[in-house]
Amino acid sequence: MANTVKQLVILGSTGSIGRQTLQVVRALPDQFRVVGLTAGNNLELLSEQIEEFRPQFIYHEAKSTNQLSREYCKYMKPEEMVVLPDIDIIVVATSGNAGLTATMAAVKAGKSVALSNKESLVMAGQIIMDEAERSGATIMPVDSEHSAIWQCLQGEQQEPSRIIITASGGPFRQYSSAQLEKVTAQQALQHPSWQMGKKVTIDSATLMNKGLEVIEAHWLFDVPFENIEVVIHPQSIIHSMVEFEDGSIKAQLSHPDMRLPIQYALTYPDRYYNPDLKRLNWHTITQLTFEQPATETFPCLQMAIDAGKTGGTYPVVLCAADEVAVDLFLAGKIGFTDIAKVVQKALEQHDIIENPNIDDIVFVDNWARARVLELTGSQ
Amino acid sequence: MANTVKQLVILGSTGSIGRQTLQVVRALPDQFRVVGLTAGNNLELLSEQIEEFRPQFIYHEAKSTNQLSREYCKYMKPEEMVVLPDIDIIVVATSGNAGLTATMAAVKAGKSVALSNKESLVMAGQIIMDEAERSGATIMPVDSEHSAIWQCLQGEQQEPSRIIITASGGPFRQYSSAQLEKVTAQQALQHPSWQMGKKVTIDSATLMNKGLEVIEAHWLFDVPFENIEVVIHPQSIIHSMVEFEDGSIKAQLSHPDMRLPIQYALTYPDRYYNPDLKRLNWHTITQLTFEQPATETFPCLQMAIDAGKTGGTYPVVLCAADEVAVDLFLAGKIGFTDIAKVVQKALEQHDIIENPNIDDIVFVDNWARARVLELTGSQ
Repeated sequence: MANTVKQLVILGSTGSIGRQTLQVVRALPDQFRVVGLTAGNNLELLSEQIEEFRPQFIYHEAKSTNQLSREYCKYMKPEEMVVLPDIDIIVVATSGNAGLTATMAAVKAGKSVALSNKESLVMAGQIIMDEAERSGATIMPVDSEHSAIWQCLQGEQQEPSRIIITASGGPFRQYSSAQLEKVTAQQALQHPSWQMGKKVTIDSATLMNKGLEVIEAHWLFDVPFENIEVVIHPQSIIHSMVEFEDGSIKAQLSHPDMRLPIQYALTYPDRYYNPDLKRLNWHTITQLTFEQPATETFPCLQMAIDAGKTGGTYPVVLCAADEVAVDLFLAGKIGFTDIAKVVQKALEQHDIIENPNIDDIVFVDNWARARVLELTGSQ
Repeated sequence: MANTVKQLVILGSTGSIGRQTLQVVRALPDQFRVVGLTAGNNLELLSEQIEEFRPQFIYHEAKSTNQLSREYCKYMKPEEMVVLPDIDIIVVATSGNAGLTATMAAVKAGKSVALSNKESLVMAGQIIMDEAERSGATIMPVDSEHSAIWQCLQGEQQEPSRIIITASGGPFRQYSSAQLEKVTAQQALQHPSWQMGKKVTIDSATLMNKGLEVIEAHWLFDVPFENIEVVIHPQSIIHSMVEFEDGSIKAQLSHPDMRLPIQYALTYPDRYYNPDLKRLNWHTITQLTFEQPATETFPCLQMAIDAGKTGGTYPVVLCAADEVAVDLFLAGKIGFTDIAKVVQKALEQHDIIENPNIDDIVFVDNWARARVLELTGSQ
């Protein structure tokens, strides 16, 4: 086991994944040193985190900076923070498109990136993976499904022949299309098995999240879309599976707790005891169930997979349109089933750019956001 | 991937595991060359195998050898065959105590041993593992459960914190003790999920097999008995699981088919496509269930674990007494529930030898066999 303290930068430290990352740091205090923290607008929590972890560098998006000035920490942009020479791991815990620029900077600098932000890979998978290969950067997944796949691939000599991504099915798994139309934001935010941020919780309810994960898995593990399967597993105990050439399947299981995939990425390739991580009890687990996703009732899943297969800037539109649509749904401006319809329309109206560069991606991202606002009369 | 043809000796080639090993060789003809075959009394099948695979060396226990003489193959004792310099892998597919001498010879010679014979490890685990460490021999498990554990351990840096061995529960899983008393050999030989030899099929019905597997796992993976758990999983899809320090569990799954663990041992660390190996279909798997073993109805499980914990020559008595008791049951001379009673009595009457050598083991093995025959009035 390595004895050196790993120096961390956490982008998005006040969000769900950011806070859980700091819980892991608290549980394993000898392993890590928090060097940088960035946040959006939750200055109160960021201030508490600064007091506790004493990072050298901070950043936030809020206007007022006075209350956060400390003599021991310096204000610095995320894309500068992540390339500092002593940083061992950058945790990208921002949601939506917020992490892309800093992620690209970290990857270009050949860093180890613990990536929770799936949108970066969905929007710019080819660019990020090509750049990582060039720079020697390591992309470590923090999603529970991709962490499961990554864990199952350890020590294997051959490429996986199939990836089976499990999905809880979300809170509306057994709803009809008619029932879905009446769903409120409050209902959609009650996820049956996972504690997560708002965006990913709504994406889980529409199954868009699972579609984004298929695209993410395609890039992370270089597996064709044809060999990625989605299976509904409501208990969220098996986090995903990998099938190998000989037909053998490996699965990773645990109590659903994001701190485990976070910790695995931070301590990889080692594993450490953490008293906060509850163990599975085979005296109480009596069944694990599986079913096929209801693709007609939840059109976002196939829509995302199709956008991934089409490639180019289609996944950018998917991501950006979905992010705005989810915001509009949370604000009560559109219905739950409108999310899929709006994203579908934006995709239909998009002129694809093949092999986009980062500027193309930023352009299309802005176009899709504006398009959704227009389509919904919100602009 | 290695391109060299691996030279195999198969001990017990006419038994269930031996025949399935040859099926794997047939499916992957470029990977293997069968150099030696040994059998008990099934000369007809051995003769066919000789014609097909043209081994250089053969051995069998039957008196008449005339019909098997070929100009291209030589008769040789197993313990001599396994130490031949060009042999890459020895598959020990004998059942009961038949494989011990040859296994020891192969281990002493530092060979790669694909071990299906669990009795060797149960009886002489300490000696075999110590010898393997000295000689550099590799012991590769061929049992589905131990292969699952071995696969899950690949690429991991730390020791497992817990092993969860799954058990189908056998054909009488839901029987009461009273119902078990009336069970016939014919009923006991109908295993719900696995095609196996007679001895292991009866051991599966009494759960003795699972107890032997706990002892085997203890030796193979150096895990204390306290950290080995048995869970009944009637579908036989998850073949076993490993829990790590951080609470993460890895499981290995497949259609129940012994050819997969056989092939994995033979091709390790690579995996190859084999059209004979059926894949799991997640469109048809709807549930995997788990329950605790009925330890009072099936006393052999705890009896075996206790014998393993006590150590010394207790596991030798357990193994030898069970082998004779199973034979007596198959011959209709004792009832199904008598198997546990007879083994228990032999254990009670045994004076333990701590840290036995091979001579002690052979002596106690003979003692236990004779004792069971006396106890059952069969001598």
